[in-house]
Amino acid sequence: MSLLDRVQDPADLRRMTPAELETLAQEIREFLIATCSVTGGHIGAGLGVVELTIALHTAFNTPDDKLVWDVGHQGYPHKVLTGRKDRMHTLRQEGGLSGFLKRTESEYDTFGAGHAATSISAALGMAAARDIKGGKNKVVAIIGDGSLGSGLAYEALNNAGHSDRDFIVVLNDNEMSIAPNVGAMHKYLTQVQRNPIYNRLRNKIGDLADHAKGPFKEAGSLLRRWEESVKAFLTPGVLFEELGFRYFGPIDGHDIPQLVETFKAVREFKGPRLVHVITKKGKGFPAGEHGEKWHALPPGHDPQTGKQLKAATGNPNYTAVFGKALAELMEEFPKAIAITAAMPSGTGTGTVAKAHPTRFFDVGIAEGHGVTFAAGMAAEGIKPVVTIYSTFLQRGYDNIIHDVAIQSLPVMFCMDRAGLVGEDGETHAGLYDIAYMLAVPHMVVTAPKDGTEFVGLLRSGLAHTDGPFCVRYPRDLSPDVPAHAKEIPAVPHGTWEVLRKGEGLAILAVGTMVQESLKAAEALAAEGLSVTVVNCRYLKPHDATTLTALLATHQQLLVVEEGTVVNGFGAYMAAVVNQMDPGVRVVAHGVPDRIIYAASRAKQLAQVGLDAAGIAAKVRALRESEALAG
Amino acid sequence: MSLLDRVQDPADLRRMTPAELETLAQEIREFLIATCSVTGGHIGAGLGVVELTIALHTAFNTPDDKLVWDVGHQGYPHKVLTGRKDRMHTLRQEGGLSGFLKRTESEYDTFGAGHAATSISAALGMAAARDIKGGKNKVVAIIGDGSLGSGLAYEALNNAGHSDRDFIVVLNDNEMSIAPNVGAMHKYLTQVQRNPIYNRLRNKIGDLADHAKGPFKEAGSLLRRWEESVKAFLTPGVLFEELGFRYFGPIDGHDIPQLVETFKAVREFKGPRLVHVITKKGKGFPAGEHGEKWHALPPGHDPQTGKQLKAATGNPNYTAVFGKALAELMEEFPKAIAITAAMPSGTGTGTVAKAHPTRFFDVGIAEGHGVTFAAGMAAEGIKPVVTIYSTFLQRGYDNIIHDVAIQSLPVMFCMDRAGLVGEDGETHAGLYDIAYMLAVPHMVVTAPKDGTEFVGLLRSGLAHTDGPFCVRYPRDLSPDVPAHAKEIPAVPHGTWEVLRKGEGLAILAVGTMVQESLKAAEALAAEGLSVTVVNCRYLKPHDATTLTALLATHQQLLVVEEGTVVNGFGAYMAAVVNQMDPGVRVVAHGVPDRIIYAASRAKQLAQVGLDAAGIAAKVRALRESEALAG
Repeated sequence: MSLLDRVQDPADLRRMTPAELETLAQEIREFLIATCSVTGGHIGAGLGVVELTIALHTAFNTPDDKLVWDVGHQGYPHKVLTGRKDRMHTLRQEGGLSGFLKRTESEYDTFGAGHAATSISAALGMAAARDIKGGKNKVVAIIGDGSLGSGLAYEALNNAGHSDRDFIVVLNDNEMSIAPNVGAMHKYLTQVQRNPIYNRLRNKIGDLADHAKGPFKEAGSLLRRWEESVKAFLTPGVLFEELGFRYFGPIDGHDIPQLVETFKAVREFKGPRLVHVITKKGKGFPAGEHGEKWHALPPGHDPQTGKQLKAATGNPNYTAVFGKALAELMEEFPKAIAITAAMPSGTGTGTVAKAHPTRFFDVGIAEGHGVTFAAGMAAEGIKPVVTIYSTFLQRGYDNIIHDVAIQSLPVMFCMDRAGLVGEDGETHAGLYDIAYMLAVPHMVVTAPKDGTEFVGLLRSGLAHTDGPFCVRYPRDLSPDVPAHAKEIPAVPHGTWEVLRKGEGLAILAVGTMVQESLKAAEALAAEGLSVTVVNCRYLKPHDATTLTALLATHQQLLVVEEGTVVNGFGAYMAAVVNQMDPGVRVVAHGVPDRIIYAASRAKQLAQVGLDAAGIAAKVRALRESEALAG
Repeated sequence: MSLLDRVQDPADLRRMTPAELETLAQEIREFLIATCSVTGGHIGAGLGVVELTIALHTAFNTPDDKLVWDVGHQGYPHKVLTGRKDRMHTLRQEGGLSGFLKRTESEYDTFGAGHAATSISAALGMAAARDIKGGKNKVVAIIGDGSLGSGLAYEALNNAGHSDRDFIVVLNDNEMSIAPNVGAMHKYLTQVQRNPIYNRLRNKIGDLADHAKGPFKEAGSLLRRWEESVKAFLTPGVLFEELGFRYFGPIDGHDIPQLVETFKAVREFKGPRLVHVITKKGKGFPAGEHGEKWHALPPGHDPQTGKQLKAATGNPNYTAVFGKALAELMEEFPKAIAITAAMPSGTGTGTVAKAHPTRFFDVGIAEGHGVTFAAGMAAEGIKPVVTIYSTFLQRGYDNIIHDVAIQSLPVMFCMDRAGLVGEDGETHAGLYDIAYMLAVPHMVVTAPKDGTEFVGLLRSGLAHTDGPFCVRYPRDLSPDVPAHAKEIPAVPHGTWEVLRKGEGLAILAVGTMVQESLKAAEALAAEGLSVTVVNCRYLKPHDATTLTALLATHQQLLVVEEGTVVNGFGAYMAAVVNQMDPGVRVVAHGVPDRIIYAASRAKQLAQVGLDAAGIAAKVRALRESEALAG
């Protein structure tokens, strides 16, 4: 029986010898590499924190003590050690384990996560709750160095620092978030790591001072004062000390005995304290140490090389279409620049960075700042293209309204991963952008039906000088292979495209739903039911001419969109049409108003009726109700 | 002719003697106190930066050099010096000068503001734009110490620090944002101010090192290295230095010659640099130095005491109703706690702080953190009440979705200043909360018709354990004076209230629009037109029973709400009703999809047809169209 099989819950760790814990770490690493070679997943972060996770669960009394992991990418070893080893093969699959942490999955998952930098805020709330309830348990937030660039992490540190709260932050520093880090905090941490003398000396002083008793107490206090006065020479954590945290570290994040000893000691201190741990992302997996490329693995790859086993299809995904087209269009638009928030590869802007290095800006995990930074550029005549996943752009909503829209500045927003995102599940779903963008004054809202139209809308957006412009596109392959951008014209402003003419009912389809609606119409035609299909590539402003024509010739409009059905384009059209002509019925068909959990994207879409079959079924039901009413 | 009358634009300052500039400061201060005693406004911040504003415009070559002010509260002296003195009496009035900065108002207003902490991001964008265009001008962000607690400011500092960008930040440190500051950054700055020896010595070293030439160059370099090694002793700005800024200060923000000299010197350096200036908010206005109470003044007050001249009405405003009721309800709900983001008085939570000091949390200007902090508490069984103005809660939108709603945690959101806000204008308008909250799964969305119902909804929200709950209420007086909260029952979940029965058309009124709709119905009844009026206090979930009954007996529904007409409650109802019964027409009547500028709240409401007269007109038009169609 392996050591790993003996771990039913973290209490078992506390009975193991240091040597056994070392062996266990090796077993976990092998297990994760083997498991993820089948399931895929964010393996790099998990491999980096195997020893850290063992040490935390050994030194702290979980689940009474609360570990609050950030993001959740690094949660795989935690899952393995908290009774979920046997379900790891179901990772990121429908009905299986979440790729992130989840309160409903385990009592050890104290707070769900997916977006970066929430752990310190949430853990501080849990510590405050403990104090209100008079509890004695410890609360530990674990956060990566990349997340420290986020304003949310800073707000939480600022709120905790200099307080009396019994509160611990573990900084997991691997010099890497998803892409290599940018920003001052990163450079600061790098300097800290390189400082050679700090640690032993500092710890010795601290120990002496802390353990001074009786007649030596005064000496201890003197030592402490001396320690304070020289801390800038000896300690690298002066920045955290200035923010009111007691700093410990940096320590080797792969040295289990040192980690356990440190955590046990830190556990007994009071007040806000921060332990700085250095780890290597992807440790033990050759391909996993290379950074962004192997941040996440697809299912079915070679565990030695990380290469995907099955052949890719010929079509590019929307992200690739975007990167290539924007790089091409920037030749024609000399004032255009691209902005990413720490995801050059995930957003395709890496291609732009290569083609136009001086016109590419990575602001770090700082979506709000990225948007206002873009607004500042636009105020000075530059045309910024802000590329952020739909779900992450929620972090910049106030900046969109307050800094861009109110001033009507021509910032372009490219919202990747709009709609359902498959295995990444509910925390990453881009279901709200249609609703939140339509509500913003001056905002042009668009969605392309395919890669070529996407390039056309990019051109339209780049040429748009009268306020902000956004385009949403899915985590999916493009149904076509677009030509070079210079051959693709702009999509005329505020226009729709009637793709198929039928009678009675018109489908107003948005983005990804255009192809599915055409397929549905084809299937219905075979049944003798002829419906109109319209590509509503401009959601706002809508095509009033085409809409008026449709109202004159149809009794029903079915609005199909891959976004929340509450106050999406369907509700928008219902309000518009009711105002114009109450005789035509508008039915919204989108993602239902509930949380959609992880499954393949195709399964998710089928589950909510947003595939050809689901759309056809909806049309049939509507036509029957019309026939009954008529 | 006064000196002030001689200043037509900032170039005039550059021709004045130091003594004249001192006199000018005094004249500006007297002018502002006299002007604001008539107009009202945020006088405290402006009085604190009179000398700073003069010095900046003297040392920098505005408008070529760009000054980017944060928030705009402190912009009054800047307005006076940039050609707008003669319009200052129109401050915050319809068609008059904005209470904040505004690009359309002056070329010296380089970037509009209203919310805190945007200046560094925007200015960094402007500096990047300058570098792309090959410009040579300087860009200066001015930010208050309170705003430094915001994650947005940190994200921007982090992005700028350690870069080569020619970029200047001026930290205006008055130990006060609106309320006294909280947080580690504040304590840090206070320590910095108290450090007695740093400044002269540090500056001397820097000067020597910078000006070392020829054979002394090596000595200069040695000095510089020594300076680095002792900086933690001598300089207070180590935190900013660690973030990659060259730090200067702190300097006396009321000493014009020192300010001008420092700015002129700093102007010629390269790279990111930060000048720390100490000012006194409200300087020269006895009442204005008292802090939050005199942060903003009402129109028509005694310039000596700050007391309002006209008598207040008998009814409390919604903010006061909230503070009193929550303090009372917390007696009955022992797990409830209150959270504010730096606005204890503005939100009424100061009343809670007095009654229940251990159950009150001020997280600073950190809305995102405040929401996730609340989620952490809710995960541990505490019931947090997060009180943030509608417009500022836009900063926590991702936290609402990702940390609260996805986990269905029972956090309560109280959104003050929902709707139009009068003189504060477009940056502070709370027009989007209905749209952005309806789209969030699991969120209960409510709005009371008066103070008593507000207290009932607070009770409902506190008792709600199944996910998040929000309530929106206006910047206005309550139409009633609520009893003690213990005498006011909860409002039954998901119910509406039919207040008046009529025929043909039913008004579905939200919150503030209930009273106006009743008045409209009364006026219409006098004309022989009888309409139904429903108080839709629960927007989501809506009252399906009442709605079904209304659909059976009316042909038209007019949805009236004080929020954007795009995807507000009207669109939501249009979609719901179209799904149920396409025979009834739903017309949305809300704030039009454009920016609504400052005017009194009553004027703003009348302007967009959201008063009794506007609603009655809308009803008449709808009934006529129905008669024509029928």
